[in-house]
Amino acid sequence: MAGPDPAVAAVRVAVRRVLAALPPGGPVLAACSGGADSLALAGALAFEAPRAGRAAGGVTIDHGLQDASAERADRVVRVMADLGLDPAGSVAVRVGTGGGPENAAREARYAALDGAAGRLDAAAVLLGHTRDDQAETVLLGLARGSGARSLAGMPPSFERGGIHYARPLLGLDRATTLQACLAMGLEPWDDPHNDDPSYARVRVRHEALPVLEKTLGPGVADALARTARLLRDDADALDQIAREALGSARAADASGVVLDVAALAELPRAVRTRVLRVAAVEAGSPPGTLAAVHVEEVDRLVTAWRGQRHVDLPGGLQAFRRYDKLLFQRA
Amino acid sequence: MAGPDPAVAAVRVAVRRVLAALPPGGPVLAACSGGADSLALAGALAFEAPRAGRAAGGVTIDHGLQDASAERADRVVRVMADLGLDPAGSVAVRVGTGGGPENAAREARYAALDGAAGRLDAAAVLLGHTRDDQAETVLLGLARGSGARSLAGMPPSFERGGIHYARPLLGLDRATTLQACLAMGLEPWDDPHNDDPSYARVRVRHEALPVLEKTLGPGVADALARTARLLRDDADALDQIAREALGSARAADASGVVLDVAALAELPRAVRTRVLRVAAVEAGSPPGTLAAVHVEEVDRLVTAWRGQRHVDLPGGLQAFRRYDKLLFQRA
Repeated sequence: MAGPDPAVAAVRVAVRRVLAALPPGGPVLAACSGGADSLALAGALAFEAPRAGRAAGGVTIDHGLQDASAERADRVVRVMADLGLDPAGSVAVRVGTGGGPENAAREARYAALDGAAGRLDAAAVLLGHTRDDQAETVLLGLARGSGARSLAGMPPSFERGGIHYARPLLGLDRATTLQACLAMGLEPWDDPHNDDPSYARVRVRHEALPVLEKTLGPGVADALARTARLLRDDADALDQIAREALGSARAADASGVVLDVAALAELPRAVRTRVLRVAAVEAGSPPGTLAAVHVEEVDRLVTAWRGQRHVDLPGGLQAFRRYDKLLFQRA
Repeated sequence: MAGPDPAVAAVRVAVRRVLAALPPGGPVLAACSGGADSLALAGALAFEAPRAGRAAGGVTIDHGLQDASAERADRVVRVMADLGLDPAGSVAVRVGTGGGPENAAREARYAALDGAAGRLDAAAVLLGHTRDDQAETVLLGLARGSGARSLAGMPPSFERGGIHYARPLLGLDRATTLQACLAMGLEPWDDPHNDDPSYARVRVRHEALPVLEKTLGPGVADALARTARLLRDDADALDQIAREALGSARAADASGVVLDVAALAELPRAVRTRVLRVAAVEAGSPPGTLAAVHVEEVDRLVTAWRGQRHVDLPGGLQAFRRYDKLLFQRA
């Protein structure tokens, strides 16, 4: 007997690995838009879950942003039910406008998934993002220019609202999920949003990545995904090291956020700037508006002090130096 | 009296800052191809060096790769001498073929600059690389996908063969150096190599960066340069932390490279993989062929040991585990 199509096998193996790492518990849900990536994911989950002794369901989100989106959601539910996912259902959401259309749709989608997973006491929600999505995310992060964390892409798993999320397909490309759908007899839906150049991600997919492949070579998506993995490790390590260093740099017998300049000065700059950022946030500066330029100014109080009076920080905060101490206080 | 053109002022300020940070000593040399970037650099150095109480010279490299390259080198020497740089001279080099044409030309160029700087007992050699060069370098590094160090771009200063090199113009763009040349009455030379699409850098400059600017926004070159600076700090910090961690993880009373598994296991992965890489190189694995996949396999001896026999490494080396120790030995 011939084995399954190699693309089907690849998607199944990826799902199997994630299932094997989950603790025992409730059903595993596939989040499925009906597109090739999440449809292949749903098909593989329906195949693998019973073999792993787990219940598996599927949920699709009706964003209500396109004509006939409800009918489409019903069709995705039927496909998921035909695959054997049970329960298979759809959740209608109302998309706000906060942070741009892509961000608003994502927020509404995750809130709905949180709710569905909570109601079903699900052990995990699986998302269909592929290596190509990851490469796009890294390039979008590159435009921000804010360092390792913005280049770290999407994590392979994360917790949100008490729900465990995982992305089994981050190591596979879009061609594989499409081929897997064809081989499983599943017909993916082409979201017209995927061709709308008003989305930065669509421009990256259809314009930037093809030109990078042409100029740098065909391995670019893979290189970007590998970069994301390495820089995520780097950012995690430096965050952990900075938390420990902040503990060591705290001045004894001081109230409020007071740090020893000598302890800060001997840290490598990448650690020290992270320590200063965490200290400023702890003292009350809002992380969303505290920018790299602010942190660099505070760093100069440590490394290039020539009697500067103080540095103003977002949130009505000031950082200033008093002899061998660095203080963060309300202005 | 009107001040200088803003572009001229920007280039001069950048050069002045680098001169101020140099220890006293011999002349400062501008490396000048005759292109806009290094010509603006030479002009600014000629203006700033006497005001900083320093001697300044200029050197141009004749790569011998184009017809009339010797005549062109003579012309650059005359321009540098007219600017007041003394000595101003050219060095003819023979470009090999090792590592591709770009690499071979670069190696020959630096060897010639090392030699000229050594003969003149120069305090520093200034290079004309701009923020645009830096952005191109980051994108070329992205294609390698080997993490923070390959995205760290060109350092603002470095030592090579006992010579101090600095890049004063890394914060300025190519439009500024071109405008500075025009305002100083200097006529830059357009190297035809800069339009030859057989060079990856030329393809990045003329194809990749314009498309990224179109899809991600006009600040991309700046974001790439900022990314380089942040990731260079990260890579420096993690390398330093890994060197210290290697010291702590060494097994007592052991000959050869023997590490304690328990000490390794508690390190963040980004630190541990760097420790393992340094240990493998110390044990004799050639750094150029020791790849991330090798290091990942060794890492699994620490974090996912299920009785694996050993991991083969380049250089006829093996890493293996014996109870609570990790050993690197000749096979």
